[in-house]
Amino acid sequence: MFSKILVANRGEIAIRVMRACRELGVKSVAVYSEADKNALFTRYADEAYEIGKPAPSQSYLRVDRIIEVAEKSGAEAIHPGYGFLAENPSLGEECEKHGIKLIGPRSSVIEAMGDKITSKKLMEKAGVPVIPGTEKGVDSPDDAARIADSIGYPVIIKASAGGGGIGMRAVYEEDELVRAFKSTRSVAESAFGDPTIYIEKYLEKPRHIEFQVMADESGKVIHLADRECSIQRRHQKLIEEAPSPIMTPELRERMGSAAVRAAEYIGYENAGTVEFLYSKGDFYFLEMNTRIQVEHPITEVITGVDLVKEQIKVAAGGELEFSQEDVSIRGHAIECRINAENPLADFAPNPGKITGYRSPGGIGVRVDSGVYMNYEIPPFYDSMISKLIVWGMTRDEAINRMKRALSEYIILGVKTTIPFHKAIMRNEAFRRGELHTHFVDEHRRGIDAEMEKIVKEDQEMVERLQSTFLPSKKVAAISAAIGTYMHARRG
Amino acid sequence: MFSKILVANRGEIAIRVMRACRELGVKSVAVYSEADKNALFTRYADEAYEIGKPAPSQSYLRVDRIIEVAEKSGAEAIHPGYGFLAENPSLGEECEKHGIKLIGPRSSVIEAMGDKITSKKLMEKAGVPVIPGTEKGVDSPDDAARIADSIGYPVIIKASAGGGGIGMRAVYEEDELVRAFKSTRSVAESAFGDPTIYIEKYLEKPRHIEFQVMADESGKVIHLADRECSIQRRHQKLIEEAPSPIMTPELRERMGSAAVRAAEYIGYENAGTVEFLYSKGDFYFLEMNTRIQVEHPITEVITGVDLVKEQIKVAAGGELEFSQEDVSIRGHAIECRINAENPLADFAPNPGKITGYRSPGGIGVRVDSGVYMNYEIPPFYDSMISKLIVWGMTRDEAINRMKRALSEYIILGVKTTIPFHKAIMRNEAFRRGELHTHFVDEHRRGIDAEMEKIVKEDQEMVERLQSTFLPSKKVAAISAAIGTYMHARRG
Repeated sequence: MFSKILVANRGEIAIRVMRACRELGVKSVAVYSEADKNALFTRYADEAYEIGKPAPSQSYLRVDRIIEVAEKSGAEAIHPGYGFLAENPSLGEECEKHGIKLIGPRSSVIEAMGDKITSKKLMEKAGVPVIPGTEKGVDSPDDAARIADSIGYPVIIKASAGGGGIGMRAVYEEDELVRAFKSTRSVAESAFGDPTIYIEKYLEKPRHIEFQVMADESGKVIHLADRECSIQRRHQKLIEEAPSPIMTPELRERMGSAAVRAAEYIGYENAGTVEFLYSKGDFYFLEMNTRIQVEHPITEVITGVDLVKEQIKVAAGGELEFSQEDVSIRGHAIECRINAENPLADFAPNPGKITGYRSPGGIGVRVDSGVYMNYEIPPFYDSMISKLIVWGMTRDEAINRMKRALSEYIILGVKTTIPFHKAIMRNEAFRRGELHTHFVDEHRRGIDAEMEKIVKEDQEMVERLQSTFLPSKKVAAISAAIGTYMHARRG
Repeated sequence: MFSKILVANRGEIAIRVMRACRELGVKSVAVYSEADKNALFTRYADEAYEIGKPAPSQSYLRVDRIIEVAEKSGAEAIHPGYGFLAENPSLGEECEKHGIKLIGPRSSVIEAMGDKITSKKLMEKAGVPVIPGTEKGVDSPDDAARIADSIGYPVIIKASAGGGGIGMRAVYEEDELVRAFKSTRSVAESAFGDPTIYIEKYLEKPRHIEFQVMADESGKVIHLADRECSIQRRHQKLIEEAPSPIMTPELRERMGSAAVRAAEYIGYENAGTVEFLYSKGDFYFLEMNTRIQVEHPITEVITGVDLVKEQIKVAAGGELEFSQEDVSIRGHAIECRINAENPLADFAPNPGKITGYRSPGGIGVRVDSGVYMNYEIPPFYDSMISKLIVWGMTRDEAINRMKRALSEYIILGVKTTIPFHKAIMRNEAFRRGELHTHFVDEHRRGIDAEMEKIVKEDQEMVERLQSTFLPSKKVAAISAAIGTYMHARRG
């Protein structure tokens, strides 16, 4: 086992990794930007080193400085968390050069799976279903019709250079195809200056279902079941749950073994996630995340496996101590990402000072938070400040528990996504498990109306309170004291 | 299901019950003494009524006032928690008169199990092992020798009127018996004016192992496995764990079925605990607690069953939805009782204002707390302010996680038992699971030395901080604001 690990990340995931270190009796090293001097993770670490200016390119993306701190502090391994350098092969390459172990898969695997075309080809070879479609541009309406016919309707016609919904058109019947092809092509030409057109199978209301895999360096691969992450906004996950409400033992066996096959085929090591789109009984490879994910706690809660500890053990050369048959699932877990954003202003980031903070507790509640009372959220990074995870014996119990926990969560001073989560938990379609990746768009009106109601109730209360009680510098002092105290109490 | 429940208790257990209510969609009613106006549970409830002066006899023990509030508020049921009126049959009797459902067993059962002699006789009839011994006084040395012989050595000679270790003597061999009998008798005569002597089997280093039982009103009884609560101080539990480190499937089957037999024999309803002393392969009935217990969360954490919700469902006439075969255990749980006491001053209560507060979080950590930053702990009640519960896949992981969680727990302003718990978690005999009810006494020196070290480290830090940062009235205002805000956010 390592004696010291450098955590090349910030916020809640840095604390998550350091908690695993502390439980393993391993020292942790933080690297932080100027903006994160007072962050909780900086205080939680056993050692902390400033590595640069707030901009990620000046600090958290500086491989050279991170390697330098690892060498100076004597850290034998680096945990990259998610985001920043987690899927950047250069960190792994530099680590190898300096004899430092990167906690994750090999650089070549990160690189291969980071490329959409390469990864899709690899998965096809591995026998993992991918979305049927063309790999090259389609030139003529006749070719288009032939391809669409072989894929089966509905199909989607996509401008190669398109994005953000522009230059995309779903086609449900053969009759519409030629016209749709021609019009999309001319839109592509005029909007992007590139008429190249692709055709793919169109999945109408797909679910995002992903499988957690874990592999050791001896080649043993297992999966730790599924997560559904269909509640998204602009491809950004907001709420995740495990297992998927539609999962059956048979489907889990099919999808899980595909995920394991994928990892085996590419010689995967450490924790990873194979993401699928699921629609009407079929599933298709979407991408593989070659790192720990934000939503990993819901898998931990239902399986009992500490994924970050397993990552560390495997990276230290340990074998996975359990096999596929040992993995069992209990109950249901939900995670809400608490972002410092204004959900009523198109989720605009809302950094600033947290003037009041109390986290929920009691049965079935887990909070992975990176903040504390009087902490000032800097504007330079991802706006996620905390993750609220609940467990229940059934999905219904988990939803009721999440409602209860959200009602207990007090964050004053910044706007957060809590009202959004409250609105989703009250949504009847959500309760019935009718999820798909366009859920938030489809239900936008109802969600917005519910959020407005919730925010108004909360806002009136905050205003009434703030006219009576105002934060002061003393509050800041106390909170700083607690942060420092925590730092000193470690071990 | 009930639509409204009155919680006739205070502190963390009141919040525990109200959380269950909120998850069930049931309104909760608090009753509170003048001293608990600002308590978290008073704010957490949907309605709250002051019922009298701080002294329990003037508030929390006033059956008449509690019934009055139940009627006024329209509560259909009362949850008594633990302590106060929880084992007082008069609450149940008054509830029956007023058509209110008491969430617990029938009054006659509470009364029978509350009497040491009656309960022991009932258990003998139910075929549950009890500690072998005399029921009546032993008059002559010859009788004593005969009885001791039939019980088997070692035995303990006890003055009927004795207590606190005075007038008790363990006898290991027949040779010592007559002299011990005579001397204990004369001590009893001179110290208590009553020479009556009992003889019982002496258990040398017994373990306190208890079984959680749950019964519905149709007569179905199941057990939810075991808890070991051997870490005690003056018969007060301080640390509990589930399962017991020595438990085997065979022993669990033997003890569990004895516990179920006990509950069945007396027509038990709702949640209860059958406590045993265990020594060298044998176990003996100690007492039955006819209520929810402080340490119930460790059972919830390993079985996944929400015991308080089950209590409410069963009291509403529901049948237990699971059977003995459905109960499964996962991993290991430990609970540390966080008391506002000075563990270095003989655990003297240390009420006062909490000037800094941050609870631990992350994987496997549950906090059931009744306090918040700037809350003033009143001096009138039990000093337990919070319970820290951790879960781990193995006992070792749970211990390491508890160490980590204790290192994160920040409570400033009052002294707590946290240093005691840290010392126990570092104790090698504890780690090896070598537990018995005299553990704390036996290891007192080592524990004290370790605690002194820990408290000194912590104290130095607090002093350094408090010379820089001092709490102010503003802190109080903010905290009050958070409390009120939480109150208003409910639902």
